This record gives sequence, C-alpha cells and structure tokens, in this order.
Amino acid sequence: MPNQSDLLTHHISQQFNHELEELRNNLLSMGGMVEKQVSDAIESLINADSDLAIVVCEKDNDVNFMEIAIDQECSRILARRQPAASDLRLVLACTKVATDLERIGDEAAKIARFAIKLSEQGEAPKGYIETRHIGSHVSQMTQDALNAFARFDAEKALAVAKEDKAVDREYKSATRELVTYMMEDPRSITRVLNIMWVLRSLERIGDHARNIAEYVIYLVKGTDVRHIGLKRMQEEVFDNHLND
Amino acid sequence: MPNQSDLLTHHISQQFNHELEELRNNLLSMGGMVEKQVSDAIESLINADSDLAIVVCEKDNDVNFMEIAIDQECSRILARRQPAASDLRLVLACTKVATDLERIGDEAAKIARFAIKLSEQGEAPKGYIETRHIGSHVSQMTQDALNAFARFDAEKALAVAKEDKAVDREYKSATRELVTYMMEDPRSITRVLNIMWVLRSLERIGDHARNIAEYVIYLVKGTDVRHIGLKRMQEEVFDNHLND
Repeated sequence: MPNQSDLLTHHISQQFNHELEELRNNLLSMGGMVEKQVSDAIESLINADSDLAIVVCEKDNDVNFMEIAIDQECSRILARRQPAASDLRLVLACTKVATDLERIGDEAAKIARFAIKLSEQGEAPKGYIETRHIGSHVSQMTQDALNAFARFDAEKALAVAKEDKAVDREYKSATRELVTYMMEDPRSITRVLNIMWVLRSLERIGDHARNIAEYVIYLVKGTDVRHIGLKRMQEEVFDNHLND
Repeated sequence: MPNQSDLLTHHISQQFNHELEELRNNLLSMGGMVEKQVSDAIESLINADSDLAIVVCEKDNDVNFMEIAIDQECSRILARRQPAASDLRLVLACTKVATDLERIGDEAAKIARFAIKLSEQGEAPKGYIETRHIGSHVSQMTQDALNAFARFDAEKALAVAKEDKAVDREYKSATRELVTYMMEDPRSITRVLNIMWVLRSLERIGDHARNIAEYVIYLVKGTDVRHIGLKRMQEEVFDNHLND
C-alpha cells in the first residue's frame, strides 16, 4: 500500500503539484471559515448576541463565493491537466466537499437568523442546553471531517460517519422534549419552534460532515462508500487494498 | 451562437458521443424516478396510503445507487476522454445534478415516513390543502428543471429558479397558519408538527430543483450563476455570448 502522504507529491510537473496543493489549501480555508460560521452562529444564539448573528449572515456570501472559486479551480485543472487516478479523485472530492461546506454555511446563516429573532423575543426558552450540546457535537464532527481530509485519514473519516448516528439520536430526543414543552405551555409554541428549526439545522450540519467524511474515504481508498451502511464502510476502510 | 442541439453531436469519436448521450440519458432516468418518488410520497400522505409510502421508502435505495452509478460514469469519462469545454461542463453538471436528485429522493422518503406516521394517527389534520398545493408546485419545478436539462434550455431553467421564490412564500404562509392552529388546539401539536416537517421537505425539494436549474444555465451558458441573484442570472441567460 503506497504511503498516503505521497498522494500529493508524485508529479513530474511542479506546476501541477502546486495547483493541486493550492486547491486543497483553498478547500481547507473554506472549511475553516465554515467551522467559524457554525460556532459563531451557536454563540450568537446562546448569548442572544444579534450583532454577532448579523456578522454570520453577512459572511455567508464569502462562503458562497469560495464555493464558486473552488469549482472554477476544479474545472480548470480537469480541462488543462486531465488528471487520472488519485489526482482525479482529489479534484472530484474537492468539488463535492465544497458543496457540502456551502450547505453547512447556509445552515449556520439560518441559525443566525433565528438567533436574531430569538434575541428580539428576549428570555431564553428551553432547548438551549440541547442546542449547545448538539451544536458542539456537530462542530466537532465538521472539524474532524476537515482534519481527516487534510491528512487523507480514512479511519478518522470513518469515526466521523459513525458520530452522525449519535447526533441523530440526540436530535430526536431533544425534539421529543421540546414537543412536550410546547404541549404544556402553548404560549411558548412560536419560540420553541424556532429552537426546533435550529436543532434541525444542526442535525443537517451533522449529515453534511458525514458526507465530507465519505468523500475522504473515496479519496483515500478509491471506493464510493455512500449509501452502503456503516458496517460495509468499515470493511472498506480497513481493507488494505488501494485501487491505485 | 452555435445551435444548442449541437452540444452533443460534435465529436469525431462516435464512441465518445455515445458515452455522453448515455450519461445524459441515465441522469434523466434518475430524474424520472425521483419525480415519481415525490408524487407518490405526496399521494401516500394525502390518501393515508401507507402501502404506497412503504414502496417509496424502499425505492429510495434505487435512487441512491443511481447516484453512485452516475458518478462512476462521470469519473470514467473524465479519466478516459479528458473532456474540455462544453463536454466537461456536461459531465460536471451531471455529477452535481445527480447529488441534488438524490437529496430530492431523500426528502421524498422523509415525506413517506411521515405519511406512515400520519396514517396511523388517522384523521387528516389541517395543512393537507397546503401540502397538496406546494407539493404539486415543487413537483412541477422538478419536472421543468429536468426538461430544461434534457433540452439544454437556459430560459426554462431561469423560469424554474424564479418559481423557487413563490414556493418560499407559500411555505412561509402555510407554516404561519399551522402555528396558529397549534396554538388554538395544543392537542394537535404532534400531528401538525409532522405536517410542518413535510412542508419543510417540500420547500427543500424546491431548493434542489432551483439548484438543478442553475446547473443547466452553467451547462448551456458556461457561467456559474449560483449565489448571484435572479436579476444577474437573467442577464446571463439573455446575454447572447456563449463561452465556447
């Protein structure tokens, strides 16, 4: 099995190496930006900080334009360099991951918009503890997925995919609790619904982090592990066979 | 401006023509499958038909595997044929559209799962008229986006992107109504919440149809029109300049 750190350093053309390295760095910068958007959105919600929430909404544009820039870079490399094997997978994974990062950014902006609404309504409703908990869980997943990408680490990516199940459980349990709360105090319905939408966004962020993790496994192992279930995904990751 | 029907018929290699044609046909088949999933999911909900809902849930796997198959085809074509210009855009658009179709399929399966829950709870709650209305709206959008793709029709794609605004308005108004209803009758909260999740899924389907429409414009016009707003998108579509 070839050394995975070689994935980026095997080209005769220095210029091509440089382009792939830059693509990867840009994707990781976009990832860093999105990570911060998620944590700022959660902070703005918990602290009823509408100034911070407004910043998150504004910065969503920067995230969007990074997606476009990365896709442009990908199609330029495909047209000029005609990459094959692991280079092709790197380019394809970058364009897919960029889409998921952009969607995570969208969810962060949605959370920030609810933070503005909720700060206007004053008084923290129930559900903030769950928000903080699930929020830090999916932030960690996003960060881990990006670290796995940076290090071409399929095992770390597998761990992220597994975490998504835990987030789904936490989300369901938090939702059930909020429904009970709404029934007991119908005047709180509007506010509690806003928290439910926030939890939904967080759960979606977990899904996108899992998608990113799946692309990392594709990139490193050469196998598309979407939709095959965790058990078979694990077999693929621990299989020593590398497609090229 | 070249005849757009030439987009697929300008290759010296008959075999390459054939591969691109097949890729496009497979994407359109996947689209047809997903369209049916959406309409069946809505039907199963409205008619409390849990048998049909179960079929939708089961067929989601077929949709998932079509996504994987199309992505495999795309990367095979990229590796072997090294497409450029409009061929490259076609391949990239196919891989992006396949992802959106798969997500539409996911939302249809979610709706079907709620249909099963709601049919167990008996008695149609409020919100079904809105569900039917928004449901047929986003079904039409999905169909129009796929027709635009089949005909390389950027103007039709622009019309789909515009429709998404109308769906967002309908969604907001339906949600507001359901909140009022929950407040008036807190015993209905659980059931009405299920309808709200369904509406949310329908609204997401509209977003994905818009994404597909944006990729059609990219394919035909060579310009990435994501995140630039409808006004500038319109300018791009009616601009006679074609990038290659």
